[in-house]
Amino acid sequence: MEVENRKIVLKWFITGAPKETDMEVKEGDKIILQVPEEAKGAVLVKNLYLSCDPYMRGRMREYYESYIPPYQPGSVIEGFGVCKVIDSTDPNFTKGDLVSGMTGWEEYSLIRSTDKLRKITTTDLPLSYHLGLLGMPGFTAYAGFHEVCLPKKGDFVFVSAASGAVGQIVGQLAKLHGCYVVGSAGSKQKVELLKNKLSFDEAFNYKEESDLEATLKRYFPQGIDIYFDNVGGPMLDAALANMRVHGRIAVCGMVSQNSFSDMQGIHNLYTIVKNRVNIKGFLQSDYLHLYPKFLDCVEAYYKEGKITYIEDVSEGLESAPGALVGLFSGRNVGKQVVCVAKE
Amino acid sequence: MEVENRKIVLKWFITGAPKETDMEVKEGDKIILQVPEEAKGAVLVKNLYLSCDPYMRGRMREYYESYIPPYQPGSVIEGFGVCKVIDSTDPNFTKGDLVSGMTGWEEYSLIRSTDKLRKITTTDLPLSYHLGLLGMPGFTAYAGFHEVCLPKKGDFVFVSAASGAVGQIVGQLAKLHGCYVVGSAGSKQKVELLKNKLSFDEAFNYKEESDLEATLKRYFPQGIDIYFDNVGGPMLDAALANMRVHGRIAVCGMVSQNSFSDMQGIHNLYTIVKNRVNIKGFLQSDYLHLYPKFLDCVEAYYKEGKITYIEDVSEGLESAPGALVGLFSGRNVGKQVVCVAKE
Ligand SMILES: NC(=O)c1ccc[n+]([C@@H]2O[C@H](COP(=O)([O-])OP(=O)(O)OC[C@H]3O[C@@H](n4cnc5c(N)ncnc54)[C@H](OP(=O)(O)O)[C@@H]3O)[C@@H](O)[C@H]2O)c1
Ligand SMILES: NC(=O)c1ccc[n+]([C@@H]2O[C@H](COP(=O)([O-])OP(=O)(O)OC[C@H]3O[C@@H](n4cnc5c(N)ncnc54)[C@H](OP(=O)(O)O)[C@@H]3O)[C@@H](O)[C@H]2O)c1
Repeated sequence: MEVENRKIVLKWFITGAPKETDMEVKEGDKIILQVPEEAKGAVLVKNLYLSCDPYMRGRMREYYESYIPPYQPGSVIEGFGVCKVIDSTDPNFTKGDLVSGMTGWEEYSLIRSTDKLRKITTTDLPLSYHLGLLGMPGFTAYAGFHEVCLPKKGDFVFVSAASGAVGQIVGQLAKLHGCYVVGSAGSKQKVELLKNKLSFDEAFNYKEESDLEATLKRYFPQGIDIYFDNVGGPMLDAALANMRVHGRIAVCGMVSQNSFSDMQGIHNLYTIVKNRVNIKGFLQSDYLHLYPKFLDCVEAYYKEGKITYIEDVSEGLESAPGALVGLFSGRNVGKQVVCVAKE
Repeated sequence: MEVENRKIVLKWFITGAPKETDMEVKEGDKIILQVPEEAKGAVLVKNLYLSCDPYMRGRMREYYESYIPPYQPGSVIEGFGVCKVIDSTDPNFTKGDLVSGMTGWEEYSLIRSTDKLRKITTTDLPLSYHLGLLGMPGFTAYAGFHEVCLPKKGDFVFVSAASGAVGQIVGQLAKLHGCYVVGSAGSKQKVELLKNKLSFDEAFNYKEESDLEATLKRYFPQGIDIYFDNVGGPMLDAALANMRVHGRIAVCGMVSQNSFSDMQGIHNLYTIVKNRVNIKGFLQSDYLHLYPKFLDCVEAYYKEGKITYIEDVSEGLESAPGALVGLFSGRNVGKQVVCVAKE
């Protein structure tokens, strides 16, 4: 059966933050809902949920030295998704299976390398959670917090972009670990969520603060043991000035920095000598051996009501460019996903 | 017996780099060459060699949040020294003993807290080496390289201020560990020493380079595994852009940064995420349990001719302010010491 297959394509390489006009909906392409003859071990899927993640901005640049190659202008954007298998020539998957993994920003995708696809077996949690709580961002929080931050009970923990896909889990894991946790976020609504729904001890709106160094001193009069950095830039600088002796900074991402050529300077690095601070950049993909342990842990927490998850679901494939762009101005409240089809 | 005791005193707190005029020789003070009645467990010493170390600049500032308190204007400057015991009320020391430890920048000092004084037993190495190769800088190199850099055979190692007190030992230890080692220094003479006397594989004069990022790419086409950072600032920034995956940066000091209020911005920190780089500030004093092991190791290397040490000895107490100031413009060639008296 041949059907129409709408796609989101990148129009050109970008330099700064992505704009909606850097992408477009491409109509009119057709696809046969069957794995072609020549494709061995492939699956054809219907895309149900697509994930918007900050790293995708990096793939929109003409930059080949990354751990992941750039998108190609004119081609469909790739990202994590939750999909339903329609046809398969891979014995591990059969029609009707639900899977999560790398797919295209389109209605149907032919996935030729199936080795990283995960079959979804637990269906008592929302399907889209496989892009957030149970997916890459949740795993990033888990591995980053436990393996990179090396937390101890009673540690003073600071999380930036705290209401986001990764941050909200870091904060909750830290609370479950017996830490004192403060988060920063970019709106009053997010601050309320952090305090009332996501069990942070304190939270503040960084956009209303004029001196971040002083703000952090107010929230951490004794200093910070662990800073889980999602944003880089001025917040990282302010945290550096507030780190305790033997403090640890896990640098997860620098969402505040939109271009390599225009990075804001960090001025407080000198503090790391006197306070013997450890700053470690990490990628979740280095820890994938821990994924089964993570799933067990987080699913159990969720079912026991010890962890909650906030999502921002935008409706329709055509809403995907706007949803992605919104990450870089903080429009999303919680994990940003796009619902392409319900099933 | 009462004798004159000339001293070097700090005149006032400084803000930028120290100048000779920030210190003065104070003549006319007298001292009785005997531990006073009331002082239990003290020693009176004659100062033979005094050490000039970059951390002393930090003690000339009115800044109390450091691991070490500031000097007091009008009072004698303190620092590491090699001294001869003249009188003692501490049963662990007797007249004639040679010791190293914290003393005053003066001819004779009464040392009331003797617990950190080390007795010098090996006298077949130059006495002044207890301020360098066998002293705090040597130990800093040893602990920083082995405990913080976690070197592996074949690692590509970069050392800044490489001909200095710490740097020259880091480089030689790295070579003995089977690493490839490049050093930077601030003059042609220093570069020659690095290559011809201190067994570095390569060395360059950073003052002659206009684009440090490109310079490091030239010396490390495959990237840097370990950067032992003595200087901070633009060199740290350039190294960040050249780090390999899982690279390590040991931040030992930031001698290029003369004031807290005017730190140069670091712009390349984003690389630490994609390359999973670890940046660790450290203080040698956290590793003192390794001191005996260090002494055994380095003394043996020296006696076997596997390690060498370059000193810059300035003559006379009155030369001390100039010698200290010279550290911040790179006037010293090797470890800067001041000879106050031969014995
Ligand atoms: N290392 C890894 O393996 C790995 C894996 C996944 C994600 N990450 C990184 O983790 C970070 C968080 O990702 P996420 O998926 O959880 O995204 P997210 O937090 O759900 O969305 C991005 C958020 O960043 C904040 N933000 C945007 N521009 C900002 C700016 N200029 N200054 C400060 N905050 C800004 C916004 O929140 P506010 O309204 O609070 O400003 C926005 O909601 C990103 O840096 C991402 O690249 C790393
Ligand atoms: N963390 C610790 O426990 C610990 C212990 C000891 C020392 N340290 C640190 O280790 C570093 C080296 O100390 P050291 O005793 O071995 O000193 P040193 O290298 O013997 O003397 C300082 C050298 O720094 C270089 N320098 C001065 N100004 C500079 C600038 N603006 N830019 C670049 N280089 C500059 C000069 O060499 P060039 O001619 O090559 O420029 C100068 O000779 C210092 O940062 C010190 O604070 C740390």
